[in-house]
Amino acid sequence: MSKNIGLFGLGVVGSGYYQITQKIQQFIPKKVVVKDPHKPRALQVAQLAYEADYILEDETIDLILELISDADEAHHIVSNALEKGINVISANKKLIAENLKELLELQQKHGSKLLYEASVAAGIPIIEVLETHYALEPISKISGILNGSSNFILTKIFEEGISYQEALTEAQKLGYVEANPYLDVSGSDAASKLSILSLHAFGAIIHPDNILKLGIEDISHEAVDLAKSHDAVIKLIATATVQEQAIHAFVLPTFLPKTHELAQVAYEYNGIEITSDYQGEQFYKGKGAGSYATGASVLSDVKKLALGKGYAYNKYLQAKNLHHETSSHIDIYLSSSNETIISKLGIQTREFIRNEEGIQLIGKVSLQSLLENQKAIENNAIFIANISQELAHLSIDRLGEKVLVQR
Amino acid sequence: MSKNIGLFGLGVVGSGYYQITQKIQQFIPKKVVVKDPHKPRALQVAQLAYEADYILEDETIDLILELISDADEAHHIVSNALEKGINVISANKKLIAENLKELLELQQKHGSKLLYEASVAAGIPIIEVLETHYALEPISKISGILNGSSNFILTKIFEEGISYQEALTEAQKLGYVEANPYLDVSGSDAASKLSILSLHAFGAIIHPDNILKLGIEDISHEAVDLAKSHDAVIKLIATATVQEQAIHAFVLPTFLPKTHELAQVAYEYNGIEITSDYQGEQFYKGKGAGSYATGASVLSDVKKLALGKGYAYNKYLQAKNLHHETSSHIDIYLSSSNETIISKLGIQTREFIRNEEGIQLIGKVSLQSLLENQKAIENNAIFIANISQELAHLSIDRLGEKVLVQR
Repeated sequence: MSKNIGLFGLGVVGSGYYQITQKIQQFIPKKVVVKDPHKPRALQVAQLAYEADYILEDETIDLILELISDADEAHHIVSNALEKGINVISANKKLIAENLKELLELQQKHGSKLLYEASVAAGIPIIEVLETHYALEPISKISGILNGSSNFILTKIFEEGISYQEALTEAQKLGYVEANPYLDVSGSDAASKLSILSLHAFGAIIHPDNILKLGIEDISHEAVDLAKSHDAVIKLIATATVQEQAIHAFVLPTFLPKTHELAQVAYEYNGIEITSDYQGEQFYKGKGAGSYATGASVLSDVKKLALGKGYAYNKYLQAKNLHHETSSHIDIYLSSSNETIISKLGIQTREFIRNEEGIQLIGKVSLQSLLENQKAIENNAIFIANISQELAHLSIDRLGEKVLVQR
Repeated sequence: MSKNIGLFGLGVVGSGYYQITQKIQQFIPKKVVVKDPHKPRALQVAQLAYEADYILEDETIDLILELISDADEAHHIVSNALEKGINVISANKKLIAENLKELLELQQKHGSKLLYEASVAAGIPIIEVLETHYALEPISKISGILNGSSNFILTKIFEEGISYQEALTEAQKLGYVEANPYLDVSGSDAASKLSILSLHAFGAIIHPDNILKLGIEDISHEAVDLAKSHDAVIKLIATATVQEQAIHAFVLPTFLPKTHELAQVAYEYNGIEITSDYQGEQFYKGKGAGSYATGASVLSDVKKLALGKGYAYNKYLQAKNLHHETSSHIDIYLSSSNETIISKLGIQTREFIRNEEGIQLIGKVSLQSLLENQKAIENNAIFIANISQELAHLSIDRLGEKVLVQR
């Protein structure tokens, strides 16, 4: 039962895990590998080295924790270990989401297990719940706030009336986002997590590159004011729904009424809603980031492996020809100071305002069109947000500008 | 892997389970036993009988589902099966909470397993989460709305301004409470659930009889008005906290600010908050009642047993001399038309009003005093509610009556 654990990484997650195991005096890593010999470290760790082989070539190591941020290096470590039949725990959503099929096959071929609870919504045991509680029950929708950094920024903007840039700076000061915040604020991180959730909720493998994702970087004060005037907020929401054999999955800033339970998930917290055939709606909320919260999640995976448990991938093994569908239309709000590419999006416009700051519009657009123009939308600093059903009445007509209805 | 399942009971839970297994064509009971041969039943079930031995004496049965309401009969079935080494799933919180120690010993002695996810908060997989995700992490508090029936009644009272009696009648019409609603509205049902949660969260065995519980039957319109005037609601909250080696556990109507996440758990929903050392606060919300929600929860236990999983009771096995502590004091609001026994409670009164409808007061009282006088409080139709910390400023002085401060 006692494991010889090799730990890669002493960043936020790795140091959280290490400190917790010191406290409980169980599952303390035998060896630790970090990348940078020159980085000052608060944590005193006995068996520390800088080369992966220090762990990978040690035959006594029977469990590897891959808690580094570099997805390529992580790929090397994880596949190497799984091929040797060694169990692995990873918190690297990018690595996992981009290689789901390969990682499933490696586990099957070599009889090794890969667990990754901490990769999605840190403290919320969502994969465990999907694997066990929902193993036999069809899920029709999973939707949530999966990126704590962008949620922190949006909460600051709405609660304190500060700008995106100010909120981002504060988030960086507090260590909630990386020096390069792109993965967090662009929706890419949430898309990786949605990809992982889709596997466990529906049995579908969707590469995160194929998931439509638009970020919050270009959120305008007009958008914030519009939300406030409708008792609403804007949240970065990842959603996957299944209808018949079609999955619709996307990550979009979304207008939600203040009373919506996801609207009340604040700062670094994550929240997930599940709708299923027999249990109706469930809601889970917990910390989406943080050294201890994520470290504790890794620890619960270690305990699970010690008891011989792994993922059964029941939904995946039973899944029938699900396909990723992007032809459906959604209601959107758009603001931009730049009209260049907007005509290319094929928006059915319901309301339209043009003034010196740029344009705003409300209308309908296909997911496919947004997906095809994703990069152009980003490059042209266009802010697009989904409008939730509860806010179907959202109108820029209240803003006191002349509204043009194009069709 | 394929189980020969014997099902006791075709009430709300049993029929929900049976119907779901018909849909998914897995884990369909081989035999069913019900109590009343004369009761008309919508469900057509092939192998049906009216004597427990039809299942208990069948040697091919290797899993028993005990889904009846009678706790004594349930005790007979469950202990009989566990003694024979047969695994059991039960949804009977009263049976389980009142016999935790015996049921643990039977499992240990005979190598049989008892699972009971559906006994607490139906659709929320709270026991699974406590057992696996929190196996190694100390929990300091678990608190929630664990009784859907009383929550339905309270929601109706607050949302529609109707009386307790009207709300109860409506709940009965909709089948949300039993003909005899006592267990639901008195807090007894929630106390049984809190007892079960305390075992899995803290490793403590507390008999539900020793948990202070006061109900909602005598909720006054003054109490409702007071809450509304403070942007608050009253919810029936079950709470257990651990400080050092002392557990404080009680079920009390509680004033909560409207913005509190438990205040937003409406109608038949349940909600549970967990505070733990490394993951901070988590929140879980789902249906607390309903045929399918509860049936699906039983099904997930069946699947778990099919995979050879059971409860590890990690917290219980590691627990160090926890004791149930009742000496602490809490802030309360009290309303009553009858002053007879109030002086016996030893309340440190902060505000006091007497008028033709009776008295109202705000003050501090010890849990021990409430526990000792629990029956008298109930018999004298006294309504007592805990005041949450966020509402420490709650004052009956706003009501326009002359407030007497006694000390």
